[in-house]
Amino acid sequence: MNWYKETIQIETRGKGLYPITHQISPLIKNWAVVDGICHLFIPHTSASLVINESYDPTARQDLEAFLEHLIPEGESWYRHTVEGSDDSPSHMRSILTTTSLSIPVERCELQLGTWQGVYLFEHRTHKHQRKVLIRCLSTA
Amino acid sequence: MNWYKETIQIETRGKGLYPITHQISPLIKNWAVVDGICHLFIPHTSASLVINESYDPTARQDLEAFLEHLIPEGESWYRHTVEGSDDSPSHMRSILTTTSLSIPVERCELQLGTWQGVYLFEHRTHKHQRKVLIRCLSTA
Amino acid sequence: MNWYKETIQIETRGKGLYPITHQISPLIKNWAVVDGICHLFIPHTSASLVINESYDPTARQDLEAFLEHLIPEGESWYRHTVEGSDDSPSHMRSILTTTSLSIPVERCELQLGTWQGVYLFEHRTHKHQRKVLIRCLSTA
Repeated sequence: MNWYKETIQIETRGKGLYPITHQISPLIKNWAVVDGICHLFIPHTSASLVINESYDPTARQDLEAFLEHLIPEGESWYRHTVEGSDDSPSHMRSILTTTSLSIPVERCELQLGTWQGVYLFEHRTHKHQRKVLIRCLSTA
Repeated sequence: MNWYKETIQIETRGKGLYPITHQISPLIKNWAVVDGICHLFIPHTSASLVINESYDPTARQDLEAFLEHLIPEGESWYRHTVEGSDDSPSHMRSILTTTSLSIPVERCELQLGTWQGVYLFEHRTHKHQRKVLIRCLSTA
Repeated sequence: MNWYKETIQIETRGKGLYPITHQISPLIKNWAVVDGICHLFIPHTSASLVINESYDPTARQDLEAFLEHLIPEGESWYRHTVEGSDDSPSHMRSILTTTSLSIPVERCELQLGTWQGVYLFEHRTHKHQRKVLIRCLSTA
């Protein structure tokens, strides 16, 4: 068994879903992982990971709009507002989505479904430099 | 260390929770995994995985009703409606629950709590053929 | 490769976030995990795991308040109420947060971000004895 690792960088320009599958797939190919599992971890509390429909852009728009409706900025009872009105909602949105994902790998490819894409979900208004930690166990 | 894998099939007949623990446990026993971890991954964007209370059927009914209340069909602002009014909500419901789960294994058994059961959560109205990818690392 | 495991105990005194990073870090150090991944699993259906902002206590208070708003007790349509009005909401809150987390390890430390802390999220009103299963794959 072998263990491979890499950290990828994503520059975000405000709230929304940023596709990252294309940054992960070449790593798996370079590592030649014939069989195994790929673990993704995001070391942030105001950005998260999701797997969403990757074909139709409106699926992405609806998901972004949904979180705005579900967790609006500026609720009167928010107390964690030091960094602005998007501060507390960004943590809540991160927690309702996810911080770690584990995806099977076969024949040097992530075993995503036909319509699945991996996204970094930015929850802050201003631009940020984000990281995602990739860890891959090759079992072949 | 050894690596075992299998893909299970689940035929769904509309929205709701479908128990799958009984499809995973026999695999773990056949593989004789004395110690290790079992990774579950669902390659769909309109069905997801959850661990829920498995004893009282009303726990399941309440969870199903809850998602109908939280993410109703037919919101005026949905744009991703090509496949029907359950299309966009099915992606949102998938993302609020989860796509991957990792469960410890000991003595050839998933280390679920007394009341925990693993479920596939179907979010579409019509019947579907679903898959769940099982990957098990045996560490003994 | 080596496999390490431990079960930690957490005594909860009602609803809220209980920090557990300080219970996991010493284990990783004792096991001398130079490289690998740490899997956390909670074997309960009315308590869950989250990674949240760990610096400012108001981030924690807002998250607790948010779940009270999003999933209130006593909805007329709840049917799973045998154990009290916090019964069904506790399962829903567990499912919207998470049951398993996988965190990379390097140089004997969890690779959490600067502001990230791991928490057990208790969703029941009364005190409980909770467990979290720790499984660590050392790959060095």
